[in-house]
Amino acid sequence: MKSAAPPGLLEALVQALRRLPGVGPRAAQRHAYHLLQHDREGARQLVRALDAALGGLGRCRLCNTFADAELCETCASPRRDPSLLCVVETPADQAMVEQTLTFQGRYFVLMGRLSPLDGVGPRELGLQRLLERAGDGVVTEVILATNFTQEGEATAHYLGELLRARGLAVSRLARGVPVGGELEYVDASTIAQAMRDRKTIRG
Amino acid sequence: MKSAAPPGLLEALVQALRRLPGVGPRAAQRHAYHLLQHDREGARQLVRALDAALGGLGRCRLCNTFADAELCETCASPRRDPSLLCVVETPADQAMVEQTLTFQGRYFVLMGRLSPLDGVGPRELGLQRLLERAGDGVVTEVILATNFTQEGEATAHYLGELLRARGLAVSRLARGVPVGGELEYVDASTIAQAMRDRKTIRG
Repeated sequence: MKSAAPPGLLEALVQALRRLPGVGPRAAQRHAYHLLQHDREGARQLVRALDAALGGLGRCRLCNTFADAELCETCASPRRDPSLLCVVETPADQAMVEQTLTFQGRYFVLMGRLSPLDGVGPRELGLQRLLERAGDGVVTEVILATNFTQEGEATAHYLGELLRARGLAVSRLARGVPVGGELEYVDASTIAQAMRDRKTIRG
Repeated sequence: MKSAAPPGLLEALVQALRRLPGVGPRAAQRHAYHLLQHDREGARQLVRALDAALGGLGRCRLCNTFADAELCETCASPRRDPSLLCVVETPADQAMVEQTLTFQGRYFVLMGRLSPLDGVGPRELGLQRLLERAGDGVVTEVILATNFTQEGEATAHYLGELLRARGLAVSRLARGVPVGGELEYVDASTIAQAMRDRKTIRG
């Protein structure tokens, strides 16, 4: 791309779009052309939304998720049970738990997970804030709902130790075969786990 | 996502990111979290780049591609052969042709293709500009390098008729088995085409 190098403004836009996770050079180019050629209103919308979010979105003082007020909607709600605290990695995970309509307690959003290889330790993850939150004297049980990945499991294990040492009841989401899961297509370690955690059926 | 609905600013950002082609709700959410949590500088860069591109990027008067001046770099270059005009669908296609270093003529970028089902006819594609460009009295041959898709082929066919009627030589990129292509993995219509267009080898 020598003499036909895209002009500076376009190149800068393509480079900026590549900051999005998983967006490579081709996708960034496609995004740029699409916005400039077919959706300039969408482009303007993105500028406005990003600018507003950068300026106006902070963190919920209680649960650490993104919020445009001191408290997020969930933490501000008087209808949530303050004795149950569910710890998730991301706002998306929290949204998934909410969708199940099975949890009426409160949340703490880690905004990440322990990941020593990426330099994310207890300090970087700000676990002190979680310990303070869980130690408010009202929370009695902490439900660890980090992912069932290696890092999520390690995070849950580490948090479990800390929280139990403070006298809190700590639980973890159950592991097992997913609803609708066919054994043939479920990985062996999940089946092994489901076997170990098998539940007695009472007639 | 009732009570844990993301706050307004975040939701607006996720919606805006969904305007990018091929970005669904989950990817948009991932993009938003990434920018806000891990790459705020990247987010600011995107705001600036998009804003600058929206404001400053126009079209090259000659070839119709994005340009931040009246002429793009290629059209402004005195070293390009003005008698050859290569018609491509997008700036990305132009960049691919340039990378081959086999073409020293000039370009016309359609910024699309004929696509009646999407309501893109000759008028919407602005083919009048191409006809004027090709009819400048200097261009002698037009090379149609639209894609070898159904719509690209139809576009080439339609353009070929118009351009030949104006007394211009019109050519199309050769079709055939790709370099490095193994017949076993090449589709039948490509092989059929390569067979029809077979070239005599002279000893």
